[in-house]
Amino acid sequence: MNIVALAGGVGGAKLVDGLAQALSPENLAAIVNTGDDFEHLGLLISPDLDTVCYTLAGLANPDTGWGRDAETFRALENIRNLGGPDWFTIGDQDLGTHLERTRRRRSGQSLSRVTKDFCQAWGIKQSVLPMSNELVQTIVDTEEFGELAFQEYFVHHKCEPKVKGFRFTGSENAHPAPGVLEAIGSADAIIFCPSNPWVSIDPILAVPGIHQAIAQLPIIAVSPIIGGIAVKGPAAKMFKELGIEPSALSIAFHYRDLLTGLILDNVDSELIKESPIPAYATNTLMRTREDRRRLAEDVLHLIRAK
Amino acid sequence: MNIVALAGGVGGAKLVDGLAQALSPENLAAIVNTGDDFEHLGLLISPDLDTVCYTLAGLANPDTGWGRDAETFRALENIRNLGGPDWFTIGDQDLGTHLERTRRRRSGQSLSRVTKDFCQAWGIKQSVLPMSNELVQTIVDTEEFGELAFQEYFVHHKCEPKVKGFRFTGSENAHPAPGVLEAIGSADAIIFCPSNPWVSIDPILAVPGIHQAIAQLPIIAVSPIIGGIAVKGPAAKMFKELGIEPSALSIAFHYRDLLTGLILDNVDSELIKESPIPAYATNTLMRTREDRRRLAEDVLHLIRAK
Repeated sequence: MNIVALAGGVGGAKLVDGLAQALSPENLAAIVNTGDDFEHLGLLISPDLDTVCYTLAGLANPDTGWGRDAETFRALENIRNLGGPDWFTIGDQDLGTHLERTRRRRSGQSLSRVTKDFCQAWGIKQSVLPMSNELVQTIVDTEEFGELAFQEYFVHHKCEPKVKGFRFTGSENAHPAPGVLEAIGSADAIIFCPSNPWVSIDPILAVPGIHQAIAQLPIIAVSPIIGGIAVKGPAAKMFKELGIEPSALSIAFHYRDLLTGLILDNVDSELIKESPIPAYATNTLMRTREDRRRLAEDVLHLIRAK
Repeated sequence: MNIVALAGGVGGAKLVDGLAQALSPENLAAIVNTGDDFEHLGLLISPDLDTVCYTLAGLANPDTGWGRDAETFRALENIRNLGGPDWFTIGDQDLGTHLERTRRRRSGQSLSRVTKDFCQAWGIKQSVLPMSNELVQTIVDTEEFGELAFQEYFVHHKCEPKVKGFRFTGSENAHPAPGVLEAIGSADAIIFCPSNPWVSIDPILAVPGIHQAIAQLPIIAVSPIIGGIAVKGPAAKMFKELGIEPSALSIAFHYRDLLTGLILDNVDSELIKESPIPAYATNTLMRTREDRRRLAEDVLHLIRAK
């Protein structure tokens, strides 16, 4: 059974890791959000791709979910001491990734080529694909500051500004990265990982061709919202600010035209009867690697049962 | 007494540090070679400026003389693991310097402005000046590979190719950096630090205006060659390959039109009588910080005595 997972950062990466534990490597492809990609200190940074890769490679910081394990921050300390911008936390090992990615991309290599090579170097056997090789930028429209690039909103402003909407600049002219439509074409089902719908999954769906390609397939979403709050990140806050009650149901309604199933947490099982699409409850919180595998198997079980 | 020291990397930085111990900060300016500056991994790197600054700030690696003390190399290890270029050793703390310098310069700040700000952040009270804000590149003409940019010759090829000559591209249109001619104008004497004459001091002298400005002043050179060998680096090898017997005397002849005095090592004291300019022997090897101060005071004593 071939599975394509759409993923953002930490939460998405954890389920991708669970799927990697449950499936043969050749049966799993992850299409990863690059709408958060940005240039900082002259470096081309792809936060979600790195989080997915570090997680699959066993290199991720288990406490934060992003960045490298056993990381040091000596370059950043020096930058701070020199009065430079220190609002985006980059560790020393992580810097190596950004420097080498930037070097390769500036020499003409595509993001998907670089990602493929990095996966090989890190021993990742699954297919990890950026959603597009072209620049698509998630822009958060805020009440206080107007439009902000995602990292400005997310890291610099700590998700504090009140959200009015989103757009994905460049998406209209972007193309799915090599391998994306092929992976979808041979997929038996699509999984929306428990990632932020507004700024992790929607940017992927905004790349022309991807929405259309997945629309004919079974699509299961795992709710990133448990008991009305987001496990990580601003998803629940965003729903609220847009006038939508944050809950697993708001995920179901957000994707109602695409989903064939929704997986929500046991604490939200009473919502199942109100769901516009078939919903199933399980334990969706992934604290351990074993949790990731168990949730992945629950999702795969649902796909097989349909 | 105002002193201007012309310096390259490690040996030069050590004498500058000795002079900094012996003089009030306002009496010392170092004009530093930038002919070795290069771009690597997208970073604008100024090796000699960094060595002089790290040394003055007490941040330099005491074993190598270059790079930072108690340094780690985790970014570089990751770059190596990803198949990237690892021939130029950059430590993690050092990376912060290069990233922030690059960010500032790409935003339009001059190298001298950046250097001034970095010196302030590092608590350096002496004036450390790049020779020029414009790009001057030391090119080493070699028998095996033709012309090589300096770092290619120095680090990548480990100084192995046989040298035929040197040129300093861009020097004809370069200007002394702000403060350089002012420092020389108020100097009582010039010191050529024990740096490589071919690739550390000559590039500084190749910047139009500097040679002319110093020519009227007392100029004392400290020989980087002791007993026919260079304390560090390829100076002796370069003299040999150019058909010149490497010795403290070859330094005297190299600069004979400029120098008013040469300081050579006690082991070379028998060369004094053959020197084309007045020469003086002392212990010129700088193993400790105290050695640096003692040599600086010997040089200053000679200047005062003249």
